[in-house]
Amino acid sequence: MKRFIYADNAATTQLDIDAFEAMQPYLLEEYGNASQPYSFARAPKKALRESREIIAQCIGAQPDEIFFTSGGTESNNWAIKGTAFLDPEKHGFITSAIEHHAILRPCADIERMGYPVFYLPVDSTGKVNTATLSEHIAPDTRLVSIMAANNEIGSIQDIPALAAIAHSVGAMFHTDAVQAVGHIKIDVNDLGVDMLSASAHKFHGPKGIGFLYVRKGTPLAPYASGGSQENHMRAGTENIASIVGMAAALKKCVDGLKDTAEHLTRLETKLIMGLSDANVRFSRNGSAAHIPGNISLSFPGYSGEALLHRLDLMGICVSTGSACNSRETQISHVLQAIKLEPELAKGTIRLSLGKNNTEGDIDEIVDALLRILK
Amino acid sequence: MKRFIYADNAATTQLDIDAFEAMQPYLLEEYGNASQPYSFARAPKKALRESREIIAQCIGAQPDEIFFTSGGTESNNWAIKGTAFLDPEKHGFITSAIEHHAILRPCADIERMGYPVFYLPVDSTGKVNTATLSEHIAPDTRLVSIMAANNEIGSIQDIPALAAIAHSVGAMFHTDAVQAVGHIKIDVNDLGVDMLSASAHKFHGPKGIGFLYVRKGTPLAPYASGGSQENHMRAGTENIASIVGMAAALKKCVDGLKDTAEHLTRLETKLIMGLSDANVRFSRNGSAAHIPGNISLSFPGYSGEALLHRLDLMGICVSTGSACNSRETQISHVLQAIKLEPELAKGTIRLSLGKNNTEGDIDEIVDALLRILK
Repeated sequence: MKRFIYADNAATTQLDIDAFEAMQPYLLEEYGNASQPYSFARAPKKALRESREIIAQCIGAQPDEIFFTSGGTESNNWAIKGTAFLDPEKHGFITSAIEHHAILRPCADIERMGYPVFYLPVDSTGKVNTATLSEHIAPDTRLVSIMAANNEIGSIQDIPALAAIAHSVGAMFHTDAVQAVGHIKIDVNDLGVDMLSASAHKFHGPKGIGFLYVRKGTPLAPYASGGSQENHMRAGTENIASIVGMAAALKKCVDGLKDTAEHLTRLETKLIMGLSDANVRFSRNGSAAHIPGNISLSFPGYSGEALLHRLDLMGICVSTGSACNSRETQISHVLQAIKLEPELAKGTIRLSLGKNNTEGDIDEIVDALLRILK
Repeated sequence: MKRFIYADNAATTQLDIDAFEAMQPYLLEEYGNASQPYSFARAPKKALRESREIIAQCIGAQPDEIFFTSGGTESNNWAIKGTAFLDPEKHGFITSAIEHHAILRPCADIERMGYPVFYLPVDSTGKVNTATLSEHIAPDTRLVSIMAANNEIGSIQDIPALAAIAHSVGAMFHTDAVQAVGHIKIDVNDLGVDMLSASAHKFHGPKGIGFLYVRKGTPLAPYASGGSQENHMRAGTENIASIVGMAAALKKCVDGLKDTAEHLTRLETKLIMGLSDANVRFSRNGSAAHIPGNISLSFPGYSGEALLHRLDLMGICVSTGSACNSRETQISHVLQAIKLEPELAKGTIRLSLGKNNTEGDIDEIVDALLRILK
């Protein structure tokens, strides 16, 4: 039987078995509606409270600053659209050119409604220059939203410095930390952010659940309105099983953060060395500070899509482009923003290793790449 | 050991074990991102397609008219807010006074943004009068949204007639069918609706998943924007496990619809007869056409909340008020809208029976009520 190597952990991750086991009782026996007053709602209510505490602790927040959502996309939409209508005088938005579509498209939505959005350029490593933010920020800026780490090339931004600039004019600062939470140390106070988005399935939690951190006192309109769940900020019957799974998965990732990062750095080095030693022509994208395991490689003269399909035939899953939807195969906006030469951009694949990957996986990936690249 | 009787199926239902088993492979092994192009995404992609087909078939729709959401609240918010900004000339909204908060609060949101909303009154059985809709509808009406069945008193509306009136002036018609789907026959063409909201956990599917039916050609803006999932209408990594669970649960409910309805009607009759035979003073709320098993009872001289807690001590779960959040204990907007006398309104509880309830449960519920009511 052919072994299968999953190297697309930035797209989604395998649900942690402990997280699954934590979820199971809430899927099967403890199905009570957590907002009901009777005893049968006690266990889900307790699970909700404890999960909120665990998650808050994982990012240095207070429990009542954590709002559960259906995932990173909802969290991002909420952060952008939930701040747009608050004050007509302070209505400017600033984001970066390399954000995920879950930021760029909500920004386009509010632009159509008359809210100006400025898209900060990035350098060739995918980093936003703090001086450029200082130049473009203005007293009428309401929100600056810059991702903590990029999904395609892994580059980590200097969020504390960027947030400080936003605050200097009284603007709020949001970070899309979907690729960062569970992968690098995240402390909302060290970062100085007012809002932060996360998605469970990026850190071995279940799909369809995430959260938005909202610092106490941050003006934000509810996104989904209805019942009074989540302190009247996000209506809808609480998805306890998934919330419990998210908390268990995040705690495990955060507890193992250092070990996982070391493991992934070893795997990265092994992979890069394996290709270099074989004299393969390639370049690596992204900045020195990057999400462990996120490896964007460009092979001049090759097609990323063809590489993906050849690797797939060998049982290896990787991504190309922004990897968020198989129908979009043009050069991604991220590779355009870092001004990667078209020949390199076309030949780009992303390997995103996770804690389940082994040294043996890397041997096989290198072998497979060498066979394809001759 | 004390047996536990769950009679709050309108708040949430137990996940069907077959639905859970259908979900399990997608939680554990087939975790691939359904939007990726490699072979490992094939199984989730297929599951997504098949689930969409099953759900469409259950409500007489086409598969590409089904859009997956995080639940009924999101579906309702989407239907209301996704139509508000489309045409400044046609900007009036009509709904009813007894809608769920997941409709009323989004309506209040758009009212604050300058879109007038008219709230249709209901009669003492909770029914919207078609003539009243005809009176208030106007050429500038964009959307009429009336729930298929009420959550508190179970009353079923004459949706085909109401939708026809909306269409007569070129307005769209949406129905919040969260309490109806899986419980009564739903065919979107027989109903003549343009949009319909549903939530899996109300029909023995998992929490945190639902759908919005959108008839082909209905103008609707995306709600969560980002990736191109759900035909660019609802971004976010597909929650395959929950979608599969929802489809399995719905199919099972729809296949057993007639049998379940007969079973629940027998249980209802037994409960009502049990109380009547003991000469308990009570009245029943709602209309003759109602969701099977949804029983709203008013006991003059009693407090609904006290009844709930007494029953809880006896191991029986029921609801009071709108039962959507334990913090809201005032007389619900539904009981106010049907102009129930305050003494009756205060003494109201809702029992919502489900397919798992037995005749033995009813005996125990009647016994418990008689003990409390003397």
